Amino acid sequence: MSAAFEKIAILGLGLIGSSLCHGIKEKKLALKIVGHAKSAETRRVAHEIGLVSEVFEDPADAVKGADLVILCAPVGVCGALAAAIGPHLKQGAILTDVGSVKGAIVRDCGPHVPPGVHFIPGHPIAGTEQSGPRSGFAALFHNRWCILTPVAGSDGAAVQKLTQFWEALGSNVDVMNSDHHDLVLAITSHLPHLIAYNTVATAADLETVTNSEVIKYSASGFRDFTRIAASDPTMWRDVFLNNKEAVLEMLGRFTEELAVLQRAVRWGDGETLFNLFTRAREVRRGIIAAGQDTAAPDFGRKQS
Amino acid sequence: MSAAFEKIAILGLGLIGSSLCHGIKEKKLALKIVGHAKSAETRRVAHEIGLVSEVFEDPADAVKGADLVILCAPVGVCGALAAAIGPHLKQGAILTDVGSVKGAIVRDCGPHVPPGVHFIPGHPIAGTEQSGPRSGFAALFHNRWCILTPVAGSDGAAVQKLTQFWEALGSNVDVMNSDHHDLVLAITSHLPHLIAYNTVATAADLETVTNSEVIKYSASGFRDFTRIAASDPTMWRDVFLNNKEAVLEMLGRFTEELAVLQRAVRWGDGETLFNLFTRAREVRRGIIAAGQDTAAPDFGRKQS
Repeated sequence: MSAAFEKIAILGLGLIGSSLCHGIKEKKLALKIVGHAKSAETRRVAHEIGLVSEVFEDPADAVKGADLVILCAPVGVCGALAAAIGPHLKQGAILTDVGSVKGAIVRDCGPHVPPGVHFIPGHPIAGTEQSGPRSGFAALFHNRWCILTPVAGSDGAAVQKLTQFWEALGSNVDVMNSDHHDLVLAITSHLPHLIAYNTVATAADLETVTNSEVIKYSASGFRDFTRIAASDPTMWRDVFLNNKEAVLEMLGRFTEELAVLQRAVRWGDGETLFNLFTRAREVRRGIIAAGQDTAAPDFGRKQS
Repeated sequence: MSAAFEKIAILGLGLIGSSLCHGIKEKKLALKIVGHAKSAETRRVAHEIGLVSEVFEDPADAVKGADLVILCAPVGVCGALAAAIGPHLKQGAILTDVGSVKGAIVRDCGPHVPPGVHFIPGHPIAGTEQSGPRSGFAALFHNRWCILTPVAGSDGAAVQKLTQFWEALGSNVDVMNSDHHDLVLAITSHLPHLIAYNTVATAADLETVTNSEVIKYSASGFRDFTRIAASDPTMWRDVFLNNKEAVLEMLGRFTEELAVLQRAVRWGDGETLFNLFTRAREVRRGIIAAGQDTAAPDFGRKQS
């Protein structure tokens, strides 16, 4: 696939935005990539490491003449970004995003998209616990899923072109509606992050066990939780503020199940514990069979 | 350190037991290693892959003449094992174990230890999600902590000898009392495992999101939880049955904190979310600085 787009504008140059820059260059998917970042330091770094040809402070300058515009900012600022760029978008351009919530993106960005621009929200299910313009790498999207949530009246050819773009980056593409996306991500991503943050906070606040003990003996399970609890706080705040209903629904279910488990511990009901633990093992096997995690023990992590 | 022991008996040949066999051989810490396994299949595999010189069905046969005996069975069966071997232990031998709970080991095994045998409970903070006699490897204990919880009247020289044994396997050794151990492990290990099991079960029971969707999109956070939820169900049932008070205490704190977080989501309190998420990041940094996890993104895991 050679130069599918003439000019791609990446608005926001964090982990996902900078990974897109690397991937687009590696696969030669655009003749030119330009960027926008709110922070002067991010713009400086983007320039220094050559992420993009040009980096703009004003997002409106970045999108002029672009035939693909990708919002890579926290979900909470995408509406304002769309309002700022709306009048400057090229006719026939595709506007997409990478946010972990899709209903709020449709709600906040949709009204600012002018007729003749193809608005197709998207979400690559990929990431690491790192953030910032230096954290990106082209392989981030390899063998991962990208979900597109076209809105009513989305142009089929534009959806097809965006699908090919993600496939060229190494991803598999699924299409679903934004409500279902937000429910699926509430359980596979948002709940696990909230639980991980909460576990780390619980441990940090104990009086009977010191923080240095928690850190020292973390290899017994705790450290697995800390990886996703190290993700970008702004991005995650915005996720929870913008997918409230689905997250509260999953939290309610989680708490009910936990009450059952807690009762089993209190009453010494070994059979309930054993059966639930055995069932959980099967899910892990499914994830490995689906190629979404490594079967190597301990994630194959190397110790320092 | 050459042949610190003449004969070591490993009772239970799962992940920890088989890793000990490999480590003892690699470091030449014994002239002879013998084993015991309850299951005929495990005994057959141990023989086939040459884990030990001899493998016995009756644990009493394994411990005869051994100067170091290590119980590597689930916590719930250690008491019966101690009762079976007690009369056959050699005078001056060291008896230890590797269980994730220490109070219950002292309670269940202590009464069966004859005078003249040095009983020093222990717990290597090391493991993977794999189990069985083929899952062991010598490097499992490298750069990990091993906690010893000597009982009242433990012989200083014996504690010193057991400390050197673990250090020879690559571990750092800490000494604390069994009650404090059980509290520390409740937060660093037992709570995270219970929460991981519960998250996986919650996801598996949804009607609105299919299991295949959970598996497909697991790279967004969920898959990190599934690794420790794939650990041995028997071992973990016994942990929860035998460290009930400390686990219930940590669960109570976790649930309180979660209620605060849930309220912040419901009321759209972004500041509370942001502050808690920022704090959690620091704990991750501490774990990496302490050499207890890798700084490579995504645990450095390789994708299949």
